[in-house]
Amino acid sequence: MTEVIQPTSPEVTQVNQKVRQSYDAFKAKGWKLNLTRGKPSSSQLDLSAELLALPKVADYIAEDGTDCRNYGNLQGLAEARKLFSGMMGAAPEHVVVANNASLALMHDTVVFSLLKGTCDSATPWSKQGEVAFLCPVPGYDRHFTICESFGIRMIPVALREDGPDMKEVERLVAQDASIKGMWCVPKYSNPTGTVYSDAVIERLAAMKTVAADFRLYWDIAYTVHHLTEEQIEIANVLELCARHGHPNRAFVFASTSKITLAGAGLSMFAGSKENVKWLLARFTPQTIGPDKINQLRHVRFLKDEAGILRLMDRHRALITPKFQKVLDIFDKKLAGIPDVTWTRPKGGYFISLDVPKGCARRVIALAKEAGVELTPAGAPFPYGKDSEDRTIRIAPTFPELSEVAQAAEGVALCVLLATAEKRPK
Amino acid sequence: MTEVIQPTSPEVTQVNQKVRQSYDAFKAKGWKLNLTRGKPSSSQLDLSAELLALPKVADYIAEDGTDCRNYGNLQGLAEARKLFSGMMGAAPEHVVVANNASLALMHDTVVFSLLKGTCDSATPWSKQGEVAFLCPVPGYDRHFTICESFGIRMIPVALREDGPDMKEVERLVAQDASIKGMWCVPKYSNPTGTVYSDAVIERLAAMKTVAADFRLYWDIAYTVHHLTEEQIEIANVLELCARHGHPNRAFVFASTSKITLAGAGLSMFAGSKENVKWLLARFTPQTIGPDKINQLRHVRFLKDEAGILRLMDRHRALITPKFQKVLDIFDKKLAGIPDVTWTRPKGGYFISLDVPKGCARRVIALAKEAGVELTPAGAPFPYGKDSEDRTIRIAPTFPELSEVAQAAEGVALCVLLATAEKRPK
Repeated sequence: MTEVIQPTSPEVTQVNQKVRQSYDAFKAKGWKLNLTRGKPSSSQLDLSAELLALPKVADYIAEDGTDCRNYGNLQGLAEARKLFSGMMGAAPEHVVVANNASLALMHDTVVFSLLKGTCDSATPWSKQGEVAFLCPVPGYDRHFTICESFGIRMIPVALREDGPDMKEVERLVAQDASIKGMWCVPKYSNPTGTVYSDAVIERLAAMKTVAADFRLYWDIAYTVHHLTEEQIEIANVLELCARHGHPNRAFVFASTSKITLAGAGLSMFAGSKENVKWLLARFTPQTIGPDKINQLRHVRFLKDEAGILRLMDRHRALITPKFQKVLDIFDKKLAGIPDVTWTRPKGGYFISLDVPKGCARRVIALAKEAGVELTPAGAPFPYGKDSEDRTIRIAPTFPELSEVAQAAEGVALCVLLATAEKRPK
Repeated sequence: MTEVIQPTSPEVTQVNQKVRQSYDAFKAKGWKLNLTRGKPSSSQLDLSAELLALPKVADYIAEDGTDCRNYGNLQGLAEARKLFSGMMGAAPEHVVVANNASLALMHDTVVFSLLKGTCDSATPWSKQGEVAFLCPVPGYDRHFTICESFGIRMIPVALREDGPDMKEVERLVAQDASIKGMWCVPKYSNPTGTVYSDAVIERLAAMKTVAADFRLYWDIAYTVHHLTEEQIEIANVLELCARHGHPNRAFVFASTSKITLAGAGLSMFAGSKENVKWLLARFTPQTIGPDKINQLRHVRFLKDEAGILRLMDRHRALITPKFQKVLDIFDKKLAGIPDVTWTRPKGGYFISLDVPKGCARRVIALAKEAGVELTPAGAPFPYGKDSEDRTIRIAPTFPELSEVAQAAEGVALCVLLATAEKRPK
């Protein structure tokens, strides 16, 4: 991947030598740093410590008299559905609360659609020939893995400042009946932090699709995960879909993985009456019900929507300095470097760093050599292929602040070195 | 369904009138009793009350240093896999511990096999034309619902005293390549309480199947759920399959639903190295990991296999009197009635009551009329069809002992009345 350095002038040579020296010095320190993991830090998890002793030995009856310890209740506890109703943008009867992984809800709705069809499908997707999903890029690798796993063709579409390239999206869904779905992280998108504009959301809700059973996989993973005081709100996709005559178009997914405990939280689904009915019918052969004790535990701990927002403020206090540190270091070290840009997310878990074409792999390799683990190049793209080899996902939440700083310094040095190596002859 | 009663003699008329009077008297009391639910009673759930305050706020680190609150660990905590290793009959590395529903593990392994194939499949099951499962009958309705949901043809085979009719099973799997699986509840079977003999288990492990990717869905739901001092042990299916050259044949499933909390327990899978590898690869797009806090909670509460067995002794003390009460009443009221028989299970959650052909629906309807809810006729058969209309599943665990007694009296009366109605002319 490397090219022979062919400096154009003694000045450039000198700068390059300095970069190389700094990199070597950094590397010599033998760091073991990791910016790959979009997961909460130990301090963030401590914020929900109370959960580990809840609901308490005599507390297991739900408000409707359900014994939460026993079987049953496919849709989830009424009080849990009420708790997340605001976040999900849907009335409690349109919300389903399930076990710990929203990824499982997304995976399983794809699987159910393949084997059984949606409530609007004439036949199961798997009987309709090729199935394709639109994938705004860069995006979330685990969305793409679901498609890849089941042979669903992924069609990348560019993610712009205000969301996916709608002209392209509208063109594709209007002509290709095999396009059955689209992955969307409409708020504080992984990895760019992009927030879809209300206009984009309305176009997604209104657009004509050849496939009658087209679905927006609307993953609001970061809906209350603000990094600034701004606390952006976006348009309600369920309402807009209904208003535009496509009430069943959106499947909305969320979880408390980055609110309470990443491995032991709750997942949520919201959709139209028909979609909820469909999902519960698909759940019927799969389970007798979700873990209602964990739902009660969360209700007792979070209490209400205000409780969720208060908790998110405390996360913000822990996370924002880490993002700020990365941005400060990038500003200081990388400002003005041609074709090097990065996002300044107002929420979510990631910063997306773009380097000159053909440099991302090299930066990641240099970082690894120097003890800084980064997400593999290409991860935010379908099939793991970043055709321009440009985009690097930075996840600053998990390490301690001091480690984030060191890692960001290291990444900046690697970008400088990789771009120096690439400098035009 | 009823026939006009045509008594053969004044004595019979008198007996019948007495039965009718007793039934009417019972009915007049306005009971609201329920023997449908194979679920633990509130007192049983109380045995695990401690779980509701575990693991405690500062207890979240697993023995290998894993922070159980965070993401990860597809296979489940090492200490949880160790805890259930004996019960599953497999080394911890061959055990997977997952979320609260073993039904979900069974459903999902069927789904994965349909869409991706097993580790021995040339192509996914769904690409191989018709798929069929052998279904020992009577059996567990939720097993059959999985098949029905995905269009898997169900082939009933008779369940005898010592397990499924092996001659028939061997004949079918040797000639029909579409037979990809078989539902087995080898110990204290639902609903008959049948225990497969070691000879039957060995034949299942050894038999030649045309389908190379044939699987035993080995549901040991009641493996430690003894009702007597006898505590029956059965042959280890994984060992026998390996010994007979079919190491990947058995998928073993269990859960703690009827050990700790029915809705908030753990599910377990055990299989060969290849099967575990296959399952974890299928999990990879579906989840980042199970709820490890609930696993740690169970480890803290149950401690070790002896802890599980001690807890099961306490369940037994609560459940056995209920079974005994039903058996006592049936013995007293129904002994000697032609073609009326019932099982005397040594474990599990059910008594299976057989009535004369064509009478099961009538008994259940009469019971309902008199305020005793029974599982719908046909439920323990594929497609809900009991061709002989004979078998009634009795679930005595959930109601209080006094209610169980009343309900059993009512059922006995309904059997007497239905058989009187049917008496040969």
